[in-house]
Amino acid sequence: MKIALAQLNYHVGNFESNTAKIIHSIKKAKQAGADLVVFAELCICGYPSRDFLEFREYIERGEEAALQIAAGCTDIACIVGIPTKNSNPEGKDLNNSAYFIADGKISAVVNKALLPNYDVFDEYRYFEPSTSFKCIDFKGHRIALTICEDLWNTIENPLYITRPMDELIKEKPDVMINIAASPFAYNHDEERIAVLGDNARRYNLPLFYVNHVGAHTELIFDGGSLVFDKDGKVADELPYFEEAITYYDLKDNSSIELLQPTTSRQMRQSDIEQIHDGLILGIRDYFYKSGFKSAILGLSGGIDSAVVCALAAEALGPENVMAVLLPSRYSTDHSITDAEALVRNLGCKSEIVPIRQIADSFEAALHPQFQGLPFNIAEENIQSRSRAVVLMAMCNKFGYILLNTSNKSEAAVGYGTLYGDMCGGISVLGDVYKIQVYQLAQYINRYREIIPINSIVKPPSAELRPDQKDSDSLPEYDILDAILKEYLENRLSSTDIIKLGYDEQVVRRVIRLVNTAEHKRYQTPPILRVSPKAFGMGRRMPIVGKYLS
Amino acid sequence: MKIALAQLNYHVGNFESNTAKIIHSIKKAKQAGADLVVFAELCICGYPSRDFLEFREYIERGEEAALQIAAGCTDIACIVGIPTKNSNPEGKDLNNSAYFIADGKISAVVNKALLPNYDVFDEYRYFEPSTSFKCIDFKGHRIALTICEDLWNTIENPLYITRPMDELIKEKPDVMINIAASPFAYNHDEERIAVLGDNARRYNLPLFYVNHVGAHTELIFDGGSLVFDKDGKVADELPYFEEAITYYDLKDNSSIELLQPTTSRQMRQSDIEQIHDGLILGIRDYFYKSGFKSAILGLSGGIDSAVVCALAAEALGPENVMAVLLPSRYSTDHSITDAEALVRNLGCKSEIVPIRQIADSFEAALHPQFQGLPFNIAEENIQSRSRAVVLMAMCNKFGYILLNTSNKSEAAVGYGTLYGDMCGGISVLGDVYKIQVYQLAQYINRYREIIPINSIVKPPSAELRPDQKDSDSLPEYDILDAILKEYLENRLSSTDIIKLGYDEQVVRRVIRLVNTAEHKRYQTPPILRVSPKAFGMGRRMPIVGKYLS
Repeated sequence: MKIALAQLNYHVGNFESNTAKIIHSIKKAKQAGADLVVFAELCICGYPSRDFLEFREYIERGEEAALQIAAGCTDIACIVGIPTKNSNPEGKDLNNSAYFIADGKISAVVNKALLPNYDVFDEYRYFEPSTSFKCIDFKGHRIALTICEDLWNTIENPLYITRPMDELIKEKPDVMINIAASPFAYNHDEERIAVLGDNARRYNLPLFYVNHVGAHTELIFDGGSLVFDKDGKVADELPYFEEAITYYDLKDNSSIELLQPTTSRQMRQSDIEQIHDGLILGIRDYFYKSGFKSAILGLSGGIDSAVVCALAAEALGPENVMAVLLPSRYSTDHSITDAEALVRNLGCKSEIVPIRQIADSFEAALHPQFQGLPFNIAEENIQSRSRAVVLMAMCNKFGYILLNTSNKSEAAVGYGTLYGDMCGGISVLGDVYKIQVYQLAQYINRYREIIPINSIVKPPSAELRPDQKDSDSLPEYDILDAILKEYLENRLSSTDIIKLGYDEQVVRRVIRLVNTAEHKRYQTPPILRVSPKAFGMGRRMPIVGKYLS
Repeated sequence: MKIALAQLNYHVGNFESNTAKIIHSIKKAKQAGADLVVFAELCICGYPSRDFLEFREYIERGEEAALQIAAGCTDIACIVGIPTKNSNPEGKDLNNSAYFIADGKISAVVNKALLPNYDVFDEYRYFEPSTSFKCIDFKGHRIALTICEDLWNTIENPLYITRPMDELIKEKPDVMINIAASPFAYNHDEERIAVLGDNARRYNLPLFYVNHVGAHTELIFDGGSLVFDKDGKVADELPYFEEAITYYDLKDNSSIELLQPTTSRQMRQSDIEQIHDGLILGIRDYFYKSGFKSAILGLSGGIDSAVVCALAAEALGPENVMAVLLPSRYSTDHSITDAEALVRNLGCKSEIVPIRQIADSFEAALHPQFQGLPFNIAEENIQSRSRAVVLMAMCNKFGYILLNTSNKSEAAVGYGTLYGDMCGGISVLGDVYKIQVYQLAQYINRYREIIPINSIVKPPSAELRPDQKDSDSLPEYDILDAILKEYLENRLSSTDIIKLGYDEQVVRRVIRLVNTAEHKRYQTPPILRVSPKAFGMGRRMPIVGKYLS
């Protein structure tokens, strides 16, 4: 049996383009002589469709698309993911399903049994889990077809009590196929290979696994679809961060022949390379899928905005990036020259809009209220917010989308101005710790100096008052980032983190800062997710809660 | 058996204050001669604790609190809600539990079986559902103890396949107790009475039901705890929007005697009265629980900010409300006089900060970029955003929290300026349609004119350009609100709404506006929820999705 794996970039709710893409790939696979082409989980509607799934019409559009796909699916079979109505009147309205389509019709339906409902996943919100399991016979093979999480159940981490494969194996299948929507995190590729390889070994079956590629607002899908032989060894690994269709011959003895060995395929990379490529895809798809072309951002001369500018220039083309220098009375000369050097290196567009007079006009208007009171965070934030107003005015006038340049370390401790530098349509670095921002800068500079060395080596500063440095208010970033990781990702308590050897006062202060900044993070842009625990939909905290704060 | 129901206002994560409040109420109930005092679901940690539940230390703090409560619980029993570790290594880490505490120790544990995972609820994210059921024997009675959703399973709406009471009834209990965390929506009181009364009738048992009261950021709990006789008739109804402890004698023949018939109890009210009281509680608890005292808001002379100002003055005291008039060159004279009249009527503080020069300074700074281009939304938004910068500067200088004044109709269609009038710590009217804002204004004026009649009767306008009216860009609000309700709350498609008799072009335009404003709503403040479907955590939509847009 010749199997094609189609790793494609879908668009949530865009039934027309998703259907066209699927039909095109079926034709291509047919021409290549495939017997079966496999698409990803919920490919017909895109993932995550979120509360669109609560609209009856949305589900009906999916069914219409499936019929359209089936009509052209002759002399080849395909597997597509689709939300379907739960036929049982009890329980949730929908199932997360896979259609096996052959001879122009839907010949089998498989429903997902294990529904992820943690971190960014909300599948119990929509779907009723399956409790019945049946293999599919096709071309002399017996296929155990499962959906994503159905295989995400290792011996070491028994997240679920049910194991769909423990039921399916009783019917003696000779191959496993799993369709998935498994989002990117820099450590997730290794994890997928470990968990899926474990399944292949445990059931002693070859395994074909098809993932999404492409980004949907905050969620990036990295592709990296996989083929395992029955010993759990990786037989093939599809490229990361790009579309691909690949072909295999599944022999009667369950061995796998690669029909089109890939040559120029992008292989798994270091964490920073993955984050870099993930962010590029995240920016590109955010703009493409929302119908915008050009980005704008404020360039401070510091490292964060420099890295965002470089990533945007690579994602959208430098001609589609407008970098705006917004000097205040506290901006240093080198900030301007560093920003200008970056603009030259990238070849992007730039403007200078000084905000000194704007800030003065706010202070003049507020003079009756503020007179006699010392300069404080009020005046600092006026500068940051004046910059945001300028940038948003340029968005409104010229149709740009503003890129947010806050990093994860700042977002964590609330070191940023709400409605000021925390503005933007999408946050590029909000899941990238400051230490990783430095690594990204070095990676961006791997061939030549794009980001001026001075932006990398100078001490970070918000430049909102004379001689201000981040280190006036925050611990050094290597310490801060390490504490944040223990708290945010490993969910250690302050007591546990102190036991690891960190200074008690620093730890308690950092955790208090994190918890008292929830109200700020609630209103920040969606953040491109590159780690296992990003701010946003995957981390849901009370605002008026009082705990460790 | 004498039963006390304790309907209290808890604070998420504040184990000290919650525990103290519970212990105090146990003492009080003991003095009143009660045999058993019943507290609400997850009262020990507060509801919703959200991802705090993922911290091991948070769960341990709850267990410590329970031991402390148990130590003082002699000569009386109590039922408290608490998150507990799931003893089964498979499945989710926690159970949503009720402890039955008697003789100074935890004598029984009941776990919730039906976990709501829709709208604002995410219980499958944290909890493993219970699959075993057992009654509790106490003082000659057999109690069927369930938790909230466990009874939320009507014949008409079979949301769940399991019915905990169908198992418990086999042990022949003579009374049902249900502890709940059932948030407010203006129609939810009737729904609760219908569903719970149906349960009492179906199982032919008296039912004691204890709810939370108090607000946690966006979620308001209205109290309204209930007692039903075994015929399903309401035997008692606790007050709404305030704490209460009430006492009952459950006779051996299952009849219920009210031991302290309430006299001055606030009874169920009209929708608008409920919304009014809910918003007052929502504002008050947001400030109290986040440790702030004073609110600020921009007063435009229009109805929305006038209603928010009046609500804030009632919730916090007029001396804790700062109303700021921020006239631009497009503000009409009557806007100023109407706003000033409101300030006088309420007795709140006020300032005038004209923004004309500020807007001029932005336009001057952007002159090189904008010259020759016509006035458009860029200049309109500069005004709205300048106001936000002024208000936030006053927050930063004086410690106010900014109240957002957008209504649900505007939030729905994106008629508002991101980082401008969409700013604030909490949105007061974001779940109140414009038509309901008028009703609220009339209710606020029920005894005397607080909101100037002129603010109510004049045509709504953002006043960001000469002679602007809301009706230039939007359908009339009665039409708009009706279409929005069909789309947002009933999830009808545009086709279905058009079939109801609305103009096709208007319907399609409204739905397109709603879907293309998701990026704006993503960054708006938490919205006090008063309807069954509010923007925020209860409605999760893709941003770059392309569907009906």
